[in-house]
Amino acid sequence: MDDDCDIIEKNVEHYKNILFPPKIYDEEAIQDHDNLLNRIRILIDDDGCPEYPGDGMDESYSIKIIDGSADLQSKSVWGAIRALETFSQLTFFTDDNKLAINDSTIIFDEPRFSYRGLLLDTSRHFIPVPVLKKQIDAMSYNKFNVFHWHIVDDQSFPLELPTFKNLSINGRYSKAHVYSMDDVKDIIDHARIRGIRVIPEFDSPGHVNTFGKTYPEFLTVCWHNGKPYQPIYGVQGKAEIFNPSFEPMYPVLESVLEEFKELFVDDYIHLGNDEVYYDCWKSNPQITEWMENMNFSNDYSHLQAYYSSKLLKTVDKLDKKAIVWEDVYENGVKIDLRTKIQLWKGAPENISWADTLNKVTADGYEVILSSPWYINYISYGYKEWYNWYTVEPLKDFKGTEEQKKKIVGGEVCLWSEYVDGSNIESRLWPRASSIAERLWSPAHVNDPEDAKFRLDEQRCRLLRRGIPASPVLNGYCGDYEYGMEKSVIFEKEFNYGWPN
Amino acid sequence: MDDDCDIIEKNVEHYKNILFPPKIYDEEAIQDHDNLLNRIRILIDDDGCPEYPGDGMDESYSIKIIDGSADLQSKSVWGAIRALETFSQLTFFTDDNKLAINDSTIIFDEPRFSYRGLLLDTSRHFIPVPVLKKQIDAMSYNKFNVFHWHIVDDQSFPLELPTFKNLSINGRYSKAHVYSMDDVKDIIDHARIRGIRVIPEFDSPGHVNTFGKTYPEFLTVCWHNGKPYQPIYGVQGKAEIFNPSFEPMYPVLESVLEEFKELFVDDYIHLGNDEVYYDCWKSNPQITEWMENMNFSNDYSHLQAYYSSKLLKTVDKLDKKAIVWEDVYENGVKIDLRTKIQLWKGAPENISWADTLNKVTADGYEVILSSPWYINYISYGYKEWYNWYTVEPLKDFKGTEEQKKKIVGGEVCLWSEYVDGSNIESRLWPRASSIAERLWSPAHVNDPEDAKFRLDEQRCRLLRRGIPASPVLNGYCGDYEYGMEKSVIFEKEFNYGWPN
Repeated sequence: MDDDCDIIEKNVEHYKNILFPPKIYDEEAIQDHDNLLNRIRILIDDDGCPEYPGDGMDESYSIKIIDGSADLQSKSVWGAIRALETFSQLTFFTDDNKLAINDSTIIFDEPRFSYRGLLLDTSRHFIPVPVLKKQIDAMSYNKFNVFHWHIVDDQSFPLELPTFKNLSINGRYSKAHVYSMDDVKDIIDHARIRGIRVIPEFDSPGHVNTFGKTYPEFLTVCWHNGKPYQPIYGVQGKAEIFNPSFEPMYPVLESVLEEFKELFVDDYIHLGNDEVYYDCWKSNPQITEWMENMNFSNDYSHLQAYYSSKLLKTVDKLDKKAIVWEDVYENGVKIDLRTKIQLWKGAPENISWADTLNKVTADGYEVILSSPWYINYISYGYKEWYNWYTVEPLKDFKGTEEQKKKIVGGEVCLWSEYVDGSNIESRLWPRASSIAERLWSPAHVNDPEDAKFRLDEQRCRLLRRGIPASPVLNGYCGDYEYGMEKSVIFEKEFNYGWPN
Repeated sequence: MDDDCDIIEKNVEHYKNILFPPKIYDEEAIQDHDNLLNRIRILIDDDGCPEYPGDGMDESYSIKIIDGSADLQSKSVWGAIRALETFSQLTFFTDDNKLAINDSTIIFDEPRFSYRGLLLDTSRHFIPVPVLKKQIDAMSYNKFNVFHWHIVDDQSFPLELPTFKNLSINGRYSKAHVYSMDDVKDIIDHARIRGIRVIPEFDSPGHVNTFGKTYPEFLTVCWHNGKPYQPIYGVQGKAEIFNPSFEPMYPVLESVLEEFKELFVDDYIHLGNDEVYYDCWKSNPQITEWMENMNFSNDYSHLQAYYSSKLLKTVDKLDKKAIVWEDVYENGVKIDLRTKIQLWKGAPENISWADTLNKVTADGYEVILSSPWYINYISYGYKEWYNWYTVEPLKDFKGTEEQKKKIVGGEVCLWSEYVDGSNIESRLWPRASSIAERLWSPAHVNDPEDAKFRLDEQRCRLLRRGIPASPVLNGYCGDYEYGMEKSVIFEKEFNYGWPN
């Protein structure tokens, strides 16, 4: 392969820090162990250095360890990253803090699902760049490969765009609560090096309150008792969701999406389209009149379809592909088969998504399952992750082999109503790790009583890599826990300019 | 008062950091605000400088602010500390980050309950000293006045004692997971300065597995099918809980308690005595025989009473007073009226404790309520703290005025099955703050819809003091959040030697 591939170079550098962590690894210790690591080779079939990960990335690899020598072999650079991760998990420290490696072993490994995502929401609470970058590192330690960035929503619009600067100026919480374009590029590059895609979500036509701060004319005015701008608690706001009949809106949205396209290099843009409740649309006389003219016969899913089709066409025109929440599918919108459908309904209970999975794949769509994995919902103790871990996406699946392939993976969602930098790390890890194993490992690896010890070990491993992951079992990890002298949580090797 | 009182000196120093926090306060800013603070006086009636807080501490105070001048008046040093806290909450920052003070105001304030505790458990997971000290600071920001240190338990014995060093050597997780005697003194002194008592718990005769690692002969051997050392899942271990019939044990326990007494200066020692399940005692032939000789007529509560009475007498002999969990009272142990009873049953549901409260106070005991406030149990969103906040300890209280006075307060418990340094701060704050308000403020301050904004503000205040408290509402605090350049979470003013 190309010797100058920055992805490999930077990962080798990164895994050196992981294998020989500051404070923990003891260079001076006497080598008196049988299994000391002598040599590691990374062998990649593919000559090229890919620019960015995507749908077709090959993450398979093999590892052969004989007499303290390790060969990591893969078809692509992405497989090499996953191999490095697994390899790093085979190492351990001797009593005198020398690096050692498990006995001779041969591993062939590949992911069960090609799409293994994590959604983070930076609108309800802002997550600072240094904190986000650490979470991306932790994602790679758990072999996630997609960061679904739910970047804007009703609560704030923390994204600076080249032309539409007012969207963030009017929509951000404060000057400090915004991602500059350089920040976004920095995060995407950081994720790319870890073999992680960044898929941004431009959520509409609902969840656009902050968009309305710059373009109030785009929002549907909600009526009640013959008067405009009437909020009804739990039903509608004063003005909410886009007004699909307002044609001057579409060129603006197209330009905004074009700027999303420029900034986010991934093949996909997530178009949201969830939770579009129709009360406000129904209340608005102008929309009612327009619907009559359009012969929409009082069916507001036609209205949503009208809107969604336009945006889906725009994404197509921009030579991107779309992901949408399942609502669009349910509302009968004619969707291109290249569009992926993401299931979220049934969360937090593990019910009702299996039927949808059958239907959506029967109709030929690729699907991403999130319903059972809304980990912002928190409960006490091990039961919560037992529930997540034991989810079998194919349990009630009745489709053909062809259909089965359409289930491309799953996504863990951490909505941030109650999460920001102060607690995102301990909320995510190792809770999300349990689902990461479900998405990577074969279906038969599914015993939580067995997994709990791996999860406990993974939490200690994360601590040794600067991630303040929470306890899983009673006990302890070592003299490097949070708050101890040898803790590496805030060492520069595992941090990105903060706190030091 | 005595000008050289270290408690006042150190608090003035500490509150200077709070009023003028590093990075946030701007000394250079132009003073263009009406309400700038000019002068603050601390006036204390009592001439003395008390050595340590206790049951009778007077925490009342008044604050008068006129034209930017503030007088903080109190009867005792402890009241002055609470006044400083309230005063610091009246200040705010101008747009150019100058310190300002709310308009002229007069406040008279005192706590509703004299005992406002927080239990932390350092046995299931170890909490490093720098992390503990920050939690003590945060306790004072919420006007807690008792740190109930559940320091040892089945899982580990992280307390170094002068003579009984083997208890920690054999019982600690590792060399790094232990509180030296200097650590303990350091923590007690830190708490004392903040007007917080440290009450240690020596939990027995159950929860003593780690004690048995040094004194296996103290433990009751559990029998089954005619054989000793027989664990039965969910019923008994191999050997567990002390054997009350083993007389040589008591002089050792007396010496251990004597060392607790030397180390922990508080008037009280907590003797635990919770969750003593009788199956193992019942299974043991030697205990059965001994019970017959004692004419205990097969009633194992006599056995527990025998044990508990001995320890209560020892505490009395050591000129200390005891707190015990309610189990002792329920088992009919004859308890000195100076002993406080702590209610925990009914947790996490807010049921069943009201009856016990009536009974215990009718029998003349002082009581501490914890049942509704087991905040280790976590659930999603605001409902959990709404439940805690709206608890009215006197709701179903039918006793006399005299009895009512016996309800000395309450205690928040954070058992650490799933908590260590990595997540203790975001789990505690501001969740515990909601209960702190219940314990300090009058009963009629009880509207959670109103409290939520105070709690949200308190969480931001905690962030400005280096405590990474979790979000309560959607939104943001400021440009000093966790992960931002101006964050003071890890500034030296608010930390104790870690991470820097």
